[in-house]
Amino acid sequence: MDIGTLLGFILGFGFISAAIMMHGTLTDFIDLPGAMVAFGGSTAAVFIMFPMKKALGAFGVVKHCFLFRLPDPKEEINRLTELAMLARRDGLLALEKRIADIKDPFLVRGLEMVIDGTPKEKLEEVLNIEMQYIQERHTTGKKIFDQLGASLPAFGMVGTLIGLIQMLHELDDPSKIGAGMAVAMVTTFYGAFVANLIYLPLAGKLETRNKEESLLRELMIRGLAALVEGESPREMKTKLQAFLAPKARTNEERSAA
Amino acid sequence: MDIGTLLGFILGFGFISAAIMMHGTLTDFIDLPGAMVAFGGSTAAVFIMFPMKKALGAFGVVKHCFLFRLPDPKEEINRLTELAMLARRDGLLALEKRIADIKDPFLVRGLEMVIDGTPKEKLEEVLNIEMQYIQERHTTGKKIFDQLGASLPAFGMVGTLIGLIQMLHELDDPSKIGAGMAVAMVTTFYGAFVANLIYLPLAGKLETRNKEESLLRELMIRGLAALVEGESPREMKTKLQAFLAPKARTNEERSAA
Amino acid sequence: MDIGTLLGFILGFGFISAAIMMHGTLTDFIDLPGAMVAFGGSTAAVFIMFPMKKALGAFGVVKHCFLFRLPDPKEEINRLTELAMLARRDGLLALEKRIADIKDPFLVRGLEMVIDGTPKEKLEEVLNIEMQYIQERHTTGKKIFDQLGASLPAFGMVGTLIGLIQMLHELDDPSKIGAGMAVAMVTTFYGAFVANLIYLPLAGKLETRNKEESLLRELMIRGLAALVEGESPREMKTKLQAFLAPKARTNEERSAA
Amino acid sequence: MDIGTLLGFILGFGFISAAIMMHGTLTDFIDLPGAMVAFGGSTAAVFIMFPMKKALGAFGVVKHCFLFRLPDPKEEINRLTELAMLARRDGLLALEKRIADIKDPFLVRGLEMVIDGTPKEKLEEVLNIEMQYIQERHTTGKKIFDQLGASLPAFGMVGTLIGLIQMLHELDDPSKIGAGMAVAMVTTFYGAFVANLIYLPLAGKLETRNKEESLLRELMIRGLAALVEGESPREMKTKLQAFLAPKARTNEERSAA
Amino acid sequence: MDIGTLLGFILGFGFISAAIMMHGTLTDFIDLPGAMVAFGGSTAAVFIMFPMKKALGAFGVVKHCFLFRLPDPKEEINRLTELAMLARRDGLLALEKRIADIKDPFLVRGLEMVIDGTPKEKLEEVLNIEMQYIQERHTTGKKIFDQLGASLPAFGMVGTLIGLIQMLHELDDPSKIGAGMAVAMVTTFYGAFVANLIYLPLAGKLETRNKEESLLRELMIRGLAALVEGESPREMKTKLQAFLAPKARTNEERSAA
Repeated sequence: MDIGTLLGFILGFGFISAAIMMHGTLTDFIDLPGAMVAFGGSTAAVFIMFPMKKALGAFGVVKHCFLFRLPDPKEEINRLTELAMLARRDGLLALEKRIADIKDPFLVRGLEMVIDGTPKEKLEEVLNIEMQYIQERHTTGKKIFDQLGASLPAFGMVGTLIGLIQMLHELDDPSKIGAGMAVAMVTTFYGAFVANLIYLPLAGKLETRNKEESLLRELMIRGLAALVEGESPREMKTKLQAFLAPKARTNEERSAA
Repeated sequence: MDIGTLLGFILGFGFISAAIMMHGTLTDFIDLPGAMVAFGGSTAAVFIMFPMKKALGAFGVVKHCFLFRLPDPKEEINRLTELAMLARRDGLLALEKRIADIKDPFLVRGLEMVIDGTPKEKLEEVLNIEMQYIQERHTTGKKIFDQLGASLPAFGMVGTLIGLIQMLHELDDPSKIGAGMAVAMVTTFYGAFVANLIYLPLAGKLETRNKEESLLRELMIRGLAALVEGESPREMKTKLQAFLAPKARTNEERSAA
Repeated sequence: MDIGTLLGFILGFGFISAAIMMHGTLTDFIDLPGAMVAFGGSTAAVFIMFPMKKALGAFGVVKHCFLFRLPDPKEEINRLTELAMLARRDGLLALEKRIADIKDPFLVRGLEMVIDGTPKEKLEEVLNIEMQYIQERHTTGKKIFDQLGASLPAFGMVGTLIGLIQMLHELDDPSKIGAGMAVAMVTTFYGAFVANLIYLPLAGKLETRNKEESLLRELMIRGLAALVEGESPREMKTKLQAFLAPKARTNEERSAA
Repeated sequence: MDIGTLLGFILGFGFISAAIMMHGTLTDFIDLPGAMVAFGGSTAAVFIMFPMKKALGAFGVVKHCFLFRLPDPKEEINRLTELAMLARRDGLLALEKRIADIKDPFLVRGLEMVIDGTPKEKLEEVLNIEMQYIQERHTTGKKIFDQLGASLPAFGMVGTLIGLIQMLHELDDPSKIGAGMAVAMVTTFYGAFVANLIYLPLAGKLETRNKEESLLRELMIRGLAALVEGESPREMKTKLQAFLAPKARTNEERSAA
Repeated sequence: MDIGTLLGFILGFGFISAAIMMHGTLTDFIDLPGAMVAFGGSTAAVFIMFPMKKALGAFGVVKHCFLFRLPDPKEEINRLTELAMLARRDGLLALEKRIADIKDPFLVRGLEMVIDGTPKEKLEEVLNIEMQYIQERHTTGKKIFDQLGASLPAFGMVGTLIGLIQMLHELDDPSKIGAGMAVAMVTTFYGAFVANLIYLPLAGKLETRNKEESLLRELMIRGLAALVEGESPREMKTKLQAFLAPKARTNEERSAA
């Protein structure tokens, strides 16, 4: 899992819980009807807008994004170069033994096609479609979290309005006004807090992740195509380094220049 | 009807009604003048902006979108393949008997043209125009619900301002302030609640539906053109599977590779 | 005049006046200084932003848009087909007698050019420029009403701030607070009400109208060009029907297929 | 200076001052600390965002835009046609005497190049660069006023928050609350008023002006190129009229058709 | 460091501190829990959205942007022309002695490639990639500060809601309400103040800087390519002046015309 993201959640919840506990207790911020309005309402809106499969899939995308760490492009280049050296020495079929060690299903799929002797064009086409499909899942996930991030504060306000309207109807006992308003405002708090610390940052995270993963998949497709073409490992490495930031590749390129 | 959408409405209304009834009654949230201002005002604005036919048509689009379930692309491919097999065995005229069983007017129209021996270019042209027209109806529908979703909260605020101004003029009797403000705020509640649970999600729904239906119509046009060209059912199926997500078609394609 | 638009204004004002009169009187909502700030301020901002001619012209565009009903494209096709039949029978000069019956200056201009024997390219060029000029007037009109719709609520708030500041300076007599705040809020009411029921819907109306009129003008240019080229009325009609929605033209096209 | 703009400022300030003086005095709306926060803060933000030269230049652009009236395109066509007739009769060098009467530095620059015998391509290149530079100044000016218009209301709110926080700390004397809040709200008033009556309309003005001036400069470049090419004054006039709205040129074009 | 930016910060903080101290003390505006919620929360959101390296890098970009003054394009042209004269007189190897005096790593890198005899295409490719990488760092920096500028006011509101809810629970002692609300509002103040005076202007600053630096880098690449090609210093200077505003280059170009 990405350390920065985990750190972000810990910091965000930590700072805000600490700030609350300096002057009161966390229980002041628990309100069941408010939570029903804010989270129930905004989730319901997402179910109306998006096909159910995609709405539920969004959480899968997030989970996947946390549990499956993306390899560093540099490591990936090394792995592909190594596979190319193996293939050159022992033939493409020798790759088969390595597949068991690889956990990334995209790369497994690609290597199987290489071993089966799939022509380069077919391999690129199939993997590009696979990549577009991954991108679409990320994009839909981002859209859903953006929608939740816009909808939650609105339902937070709906909850506060409900609370205020009910409080104003029972204004006879002024001593209850304070507590009534406090409860009413908790729903707005839910909306502002969860949208800004969870939903919107997750939408941004999925966008960043989508870019990183697309770059990595393109790198892999380029590498697998080089395997099919029987390029020399050295040549392949030079080509794949075009995907790295200049600093990371400077040394080798320079010596090549 | 789409289960997710129905579920969304049930969940949304359910959660919010339940939250209201935990501390009060639903009747606190009924206010005729407020409803007139919020719903009347925003509907009037739509009548000014859009030609009457389109404004009324938007509700038809939504109704159609709920009553007419879109077939799964996979089912549709099977149906078209089956029709292709029938046509190959018994000739194009044999399709005529099947038309009675088909409820989708788009497909009926297309099959009639196939049976009439319409050339491929003409068939594609006519159906593409039909498809654009369907898309335009969805797009206009989305625009109208987006407009309602933006306009309703504004008229909700207008209603609240009316209520507050009237209350402030009768400030002599402080005991009435609470109830007066409660009524004033109900209009804002209408705006926030209905815009976020109905209008804006419906606008999103129409957009999603438009994408799905466009894909399906394109698939049908491609299939009908294959019928006219007399392609083999197997060939047609392979082509049409390009419209499916990779997972759904993997097995067959792979064995074909 | 467009019935939907008229209906929209009647409905909007009706609902809101009725809602006001259920609990008070319309006179509570009249405040001269507030109106000066809201309407004066936002109009002044438009005079600064746009050249005076265009700012004043925006109201002309709206007036024209209400007084001059756009003919239905179908009627227009019939009219042009009829003119084509006349020209074929009695020669282009015979069109001259008909010009007197035509009220649309665009069509008159075009027919005069046809009678004068203007070549097709010249005719299309001149009328296209005329059409772009009409479009630009609509677009500028839309921009101005959008600006008014954004500016009016802002000046409404300015007016409310003025009222509140003055009220707070005279806080000694608490019995006047209510009425003072009521007056202050009337300006915000003006802003929210007029922007959302008049200015923004008119901006939308001008956009819709622009699309409809552009389509109609293109249809006319195509028809007039056909007149110049001496196409058969039947051929012309078929071509012009490409501008209609599929349903409206289905029958004839089908029989033609 | 543009009369509409001047009128806009007079109307805007007039209406709002009049509205204020109907119920109070203008001095209620003067607050030094509030002005420091609102105007100081938003100006400081502009100095951070834009290079100092451009930030200061924005005011120069506005000044220029008020002091230097753009000539009407029609007048400009007449002037250029006249110059063309002079050049045809007495040779290009005869233009030299006229330069002294011309105040527009752009035209002076162009004429000097014409007299120096600069080839057409070079002349167009140099003047186009000059024009792009003028456009960039307008665009940057618009950006700066847009930024001020967005930033001022935010700093207005900062000022109000400062006032409210200080007032709440001195709540012991309730008689001071009213005046304290009045002062606090003056800063919000500054933000809403000046942003909507000055900054944002000026941003819009610069955009309108940029379009007008670009059109005029293009017209001049086309005319100067015609001078270099030695086109007949009649031919030049016909070409330049393409820059005018159809109404303005109808008569002449028609007689030419 | 850019004087305007420094001036902006000094002016902004100066005006606002002065305004605060006219009626109270700066200590009224210090609140630890509020700062934790506002700054902690918005920083946490950035850590979730962006990879940790980039989030931390954003501050490096800002620091670099303040400590490393961009040379004026005119100075840079002079430096490059001078280097070209040296190279023409004493050969490319003579440039080596000058590298020690140059602090800009981009130019050093380019000159080293020139001395090594790198062909023009390779040199342009390598430096263009380097430039894109610099641009990407600026763009990511801008995105992060834009995100902070949007997120901070939201967390400011979260902090205020926490404060208000806690205050409303302890409403028994009315004498504490004022101070409680004051503390609650300090968090909103943090959000509005820091977002509008620091975060958003810095985002704008990075955008401006990015444009300036890109122009300068392009100028350098063009100059270094001219060095490789062995163009005459005079010719190189003329070409590079195309990067300057017309005023700055008028004299020389004119004499050349």
